[in-house]
Amino acid sequence: MHNADGNAAQPALADLMRRGELFSEKCPSREVLKHVTSRWGVLLLVALLSGTHRFSDLRRKVNGISEKMLAQTLQWLEGDGFVERIAYPVVPPHVEYRLTPLGEEIGGKVEALADWIEVKLPEILAAQREKR
Amino acid sequence: MHNADGNAAQPALADLMRRGELFSEKCPSREVLKHVTSRWGVLLLVALLSGTHRFSDLRRKVNGISEKMLAQTLQWLEGDGFVERIAYPVVPPHVEYRLTPLGEEIGGKVEALADWIEVKLPEILAAQREKR
Repeated sequence: MHNADGNAAQPALADLMRRGELFSEKCPSREVLKHVTSRWGVLLLVALLSGTHRFSDLRRKVNGISEKMLAQTLQWLEGDGFVERIAYPVVPPHVEYRLTPLGEEIGGKVEALADWIEVKLPEILAAQREKR
Repeated sequence: MHNADGNAAQPALADLMRRGELFSEKCPSREVLKHVTSRWGVLLLVALLSGTHRFSDLRRKVNGISEKMLAQTLQWLEGDGFVERIAYPVVPPHVEYRLTPLGEEIGGKVEALADWIEVKLPEILAAQREKR
């Protein structure tokens, strides 16, 4: 549990810090988790792990994303300090996106989770069939 | 990309397997990611990492969860093969929940991601303030 300034919560709230309430609705970490584990957040982080991209490159690479959702998700990730937007002062405008060092760290963790699911999917689907 | 039987997709769909389309809407891995990164999915996995729990224990531990959402999320995680439900044939009924070996693995990865966000939150919030 953190307050909006990122400091530890008041002592009176110490009991909220016990594991299991870290993601209370009031904790800003909840929003960050939402950004990076959203459908497009996962894909964009993984796409950007391979290097700097232009908007149009990302649009092509992340199949199915709309221009609006791409812009929105990049804005979230930029706002959290995971993505850096570099605008070159040329005509026509040239904008590139790349992961910050913080973005590379979280991108690696998200990729590890996604890869694990991919690798274990046959086992997971077998479990799902048994339950039906 | 996997089909619903968990086999690799047809050769004709080979190009769909390139990174970035793994989480296409048709891929069942998308649902699994949703279950484990949902607000309550994260909390339940982390709570269950510490051992077997009764329904009422989980309800207490995961502050703010409703009985309905607890039952629903446990059902998702059970359906994916991450949680085992053990019903003892006694009166009154006694039901316990624990992670399967698969659930312990994914619980560890989800916890790593959540822990990373908690630890880095001051940096993330500083980045958010700069953007405003």
